[in-house]
Amino acid sequence: MKILGIDPGTRNCGYAVIEKNGRDLKLIEAGLIKIKTTILQEQIVEMTEGIDLIFKAYKIDEVSIEDMFYAFNPKTVIKLAQFRGAISLKILQNFGNFAEYTPLQVKQAVTGNGKATKEQVSFMVKKLLGIKKEIKPLDITDAIAIALTHSQRVKG
Amino acid sequence: MKILGIDPGTRNCGYAVIEKNGRDLKLIEAGLIKIKTTILQEQIVEMTEGIDLIFKAYKIDEVSIEDMFYAFNPKTVIKLAQFRGAISLKILQNFGNFAEYTPLQVKQAVTGNGKATKEQVSFMVKKLLGIKKEIKPLDITDAIAIALTHSQRVKG
Repeated sequence: MKILGIDPGTRNCGYAVIEKNGRDLKLIEAGLIKIKTTILQEQIVEMTEGIDLIFKAYKIDEVSIEDMFYAFNPKTVIKLAQFRGAISLKILQNFGNFAEYTPLQVKQAVTGNGKATKEQVSFMVKKLLGIKKEIKPLDITDAIAIALTHSQRVKG
Repeated sequence: MKILGIDPGTRNCGYAVIEKNGRDLKLIEAGLIKIKTTILQEQIVEMTEGIDLIFKAYKIDEVSIEDMFYAFNPKTVIKLAQFRGAISLKILQNFGNFAEYTPLQVKQAVTGNGKATKEQVSFMVKKLLGIKKEIKPLDITDAIAIALTHSQRVKG
């Protein structure tokens, strides 16, 4: 089964598609939906059109998104939450439902430690998927980790 | 021309359709998109399906939404911003663009005072539209005020 992981950001949106066959896990694709415009309405369109392309390219069986956290900057929170709301609607339109995991749940699921560093998460993501070279850009590691977290909760 | 005003909330979403003919303004309809479920994904679907119904019922020429403000409760901000993001995408899909006004801009436009009370806004909304009875529920007054604010910026 193909699991899509999504990590909404205020500049880019990380995504990853992994394939799960029993205990076997494989990375199919991971990347960033890049936002070029600075106008919020156009950013929403660009980001959600990127989501459409992923659903067109892959027969996705499960979707998981990183849950919102409380950032220090209220402007960042509002922007991120609006993107997350638009992405949520786009996934609901394309697919119908999705799972949500907090950063703590993702770190816990992937490394066994809810307070793991970015480096520890990256190390375990590569280990679980048998990837030897560096994952670039590092931002997409979170999207892969979200998909891996969901892979532990579903049978297939 | 028909102007749609939208006031996204965390429980309901106020909407109003006004008709503008030169300096003549008339309230066509105003109401609440009521959210019944407590599950965020279903709330997003209910709210945006309500937006679809408005676009099906009326040939809308202009759309305006209340801009986000910083609420005291971060959970409220995150929920409201996610709804607003989903509503934004739905309007972009149905219509293509919308205007945004802060609560201060709306109060300023309708009453001449950016710090006007809810009662003062309600009084002026009724006066501008020639409505004699009370507007119920009061929540929809904001949606009407947003549409009225936009009516001052567009020709038609």
